[in-house]
Parts: sequence; structure tokens; C-alpha cells
Amino acid sequence: MTQILFSNPVFVTYVIAASIMILKAISMSWLTVVRMMKVNGGFRAPEDIRKTMLNPNPSAEQVKPNEYVERVRRIHQNDLENIPFFLFAGLLFVFTGPSLLVAQILMYGYVISRFIHFYVYLNEFTHDTRATFWTIGSLILIFMAGRTLVFATMGI
Amino acid sequence: MTQILFSNPVFVTYVIAASIMILKAISMSWLTVVRMMKVNGGFRAPEDIRKTMLNPNPSAEQVKPNEYVERVRRIHQNDLENIPFFLFAGLLFVFTGPSLLVAQILMYGYVISRFIHFYVYLNEFTHDTRATFWTIGSLILIFMAGRTLVFATMGI
Amino acid sequence: MTQILFSNPVFVTYVIAASIMILKAISMSWLTVVRMMKVNGGFRAPEDIRKTMLNPNPSAEQVKPNEYVERVRRIHQNDLENIPFFLFAGLLFVFTGPSLLVAQILMYGYVISRFIHFYVYLNEFTHDTRATFWTIGSLILIFMAGRTLVFATMGI
Repeated sequence: MTQILFSNPVFVTYVIAASIMILKAISMSWLTVVRMMKVNGGFRAPEDIRKTMLNPNPSAEQVKPNEYVERVRRIHQNDLENIPFFLFAGLLFVFTGPSLLVAQILMYGYVISRFIHFYVYLNEFTHDTRATFWTIGSLILIFMAGRTLVFATMGI
Repeated sequence: MTQILFSNPVFVTYVIAASIMILKAISMSWLTVVRMMKVNGGFRAPEDIRKTMLNPNPSAEQVKPNEYVERVRRIHQNDLENIPFFLFAGLLFVFTGPSLLVAQILMYGYVISRFIHFYVYLNEFTHDTRATFWTIGSLILIFMAGRTLVFATMGI
Repeated sequence: MTQILFSNPVFVTYVIAASIMILKAISMSWLTVVRMMKVNGGFRAPEDIRKTMLNPNPSAEQVKPNEYVERVRRIHQNDLENIPFFLFAGLLFVFTGPSLLVAQILMYGYVISRFIHFYVYLNEFTHDTRATFWTIGSLILIFMAGRTLVFATMGI
């Protein structure tokens, strides 16, 4: 029997966590757009300082790095380094047949750790605080991938 | 019954769209290689200006950013920010049992939006045009992930 | 019948290769952390030079790019450009019903190519050598995605 069915509450847990994480990651693109519009800059391509409807008064300043925008880009990059691997590790972990409680703690725990990491990064908390919440998520990821590897190689 | 079977035309639609998007993303690496060879530069690692069979006349210029190469790197980065999430959102969306027509419009629509985005970015169209096609793809992504989240949480 | 079951040795092969690749990619974050601690620098966010328990003697130097750290970031970036697509291409390839031997050669071959690429990049081998091992992995990826596309469109 496949575990990848909506009748399996562990899979439902995964799908909820995964959908939220996908929407979170995509939101970083939109937050970058919002901030670029706010500061009217932080663009990256040379053609972005061409005069257009949305950019009626272009200037060379607009393609210089803008910290207000770059902060979201760093958060986004951190998501790219983590979330796709969570999405896979979580999916494969479902196949190992964990208990619902364990799956919920790990998967919802991961989601919460990433939202706190986001809040802490956006609001310029210290490196130590940010690293702490990143570490929680990363350890969850490592546990799920490691558990799956043990299950696949040894069947236990 | 699982929906993840080749007898389900919605899944077949997903696999076709996903395979094309994977090949598209990987092609960006190869296009970067082609452009690096054309300009004999745009390299990134310090050791890339060591004398080798493929680089018989190295110079320090070769590790300076080259806009012809950087353009493809930006397109590639945009793919990394979007395509892995499409691959997941699409897969999970299949489980919500959409009609074939809806799945085809969303998934093939996404593929088309990304190819136009690529064409527009590569050929230095304005920021407005590029943003339009990125937005189409991003909204499809958000719809699929949001629909999946509703389905997983409320069962409808 | 679904092929995505632990009773299918091709799927087991995939899960082993995928788990190892997930752990490999996540390890790059940790290797970055190790190297940042070693050189006490290579940080990225402006707030990382604030005085904290883990950074008792901050200096502006700490947010300047540090090649010892940047090398791992480049390797990590290369993983982000490749591994998520392997994870998908491999999963979808399982559905095409390949023989166990073919799956093992492609998937374990991919894993080995990535570990050699890592070793070669970390130890500053020439661009030619690094490109060779990247190419092996990339061709495996293209084959698996292309094969899946043919299977999904033509059913053979």
C-alpha cells in the first residue's frame, strides 16, 4: 500500500507543511518586488533603467545594491538553500511510516522555525539568534533525511 | 486510489510539464558554459585562470564579471527561485484531483510563461515586460499551492 | 500499480541516492558555518558585526568576502543548480519503469559524480577537471528527464 494518499494523516500533515513552505518561499519574490517599488531601486538588470510606464524617471542609481532590498534577497537565498530539501526530505520521510505525532512535531516544527528565522532576519536580530532558528530547521531536515536513508538501506 | 499513475492524464500532464521545466533549468547551466567559452571569460573560481588544455592563455580578466555571461546567470537564478516550487506545487496539486483542462491550462500555461520570460530576459526587453511574464507564472504557482493547502486542510 | 513503493528496488535505489544528495547539499551550509567560525568572518548581513556571545570582538572586516568561505558558497550554489533537479528527475524516472541496473548506474553514478565534483572544487583542481565531473552529472540528469519526457508523451 502506498502512504502517499490523503487518507493517510501523515501525508496530509506533509502536504499542509509543504504548501505553506512553497507559499512562504514564493512570497520572498513578492516582498522583493514590494521593496524595490518602495525604494524605486535595487534592480539588477542593466535594461531596468530604461524608461517605461512603471519607471518613468530612470536613473543609474536604481541598479546599485540597496540594503533594504538585499536583505530580502538574502532571506530568499536562505530559503532556496533549505526549503526545496525540506520538501523532498519530508516527502520521502512519509514513506518510512512515522507516527502522526512525530511527523507533526518535525514538519510543523520546521515550518515554525522558518517563520521565526524570517522574522528574526527581517528585523535584524543578532547573528546568534538567527543562527539558532536556522539550526533548529536544519537539524529537523538532517533527521528526516537520515532516518529515510536508514529506512531505505536497512529496512528499519 | 493514488492519482500518481500514468493512467491518470492529469499526472501525465504534470510529468510532461515537469520534465520540460527540469530540462529548461539545466539548459541554463549549459548556456552559461556556451557563453563563457564564447567570451573566454566570466569565470568565478580563482583557479579558473590556471593554464589548462581548455584555457591555454589564461589572464586575470577571465574571472571578472562579464555581462554577457551574467545575464544567463540571472535568468538561471530566477529559475532556481521558481521552478523547484512549481515542480512541488504541481505534484501536490495533482492529488487534489483537478479536471484535466484546469491542469493543462495551469501547467502548460506555467511552462509557456517561463519560456517567454526567458526569451524576454535574454533579449533585454524592458523590466515591465519581463515582470509581466514572471507574474503570470508566479500567480499560477500561488494558485496551485493555495488550492492544495485548502484541499489538505478542509478536504474540499 | 504504483512504482513508488519500498517493495520496488528501483524506488529504494532512488530513495538512497536522494537522501544522500539531500544530506550532501545541507552539509554545504554546515561547512560554510565551520569555515566562517574558523576565519571568524565571511559573514553577509550588516548586523553580523554586532557584539554577541558568539562574536565578542566584532570588526568591519568580518562582513568582507572571504575566499575560504566563498569557495564553499560557490560549491553550495552549484548544488542548488543541480541537486533539486536530480531529485525530481530521479523520482519521475522511477515511474518509467527502468531496470534496476540502469537505475543504479544512473542514480549512484550521479551521486559519485557530485562527490568527486565537490572534492575537486574544494581542493582547487583545474576548471577542466571540475567541468568534467559536473558534465557527467549533468548528462545523467538530462538523460533521466529526457527519458521521462519521451515516456510521458509517447508512452514508450
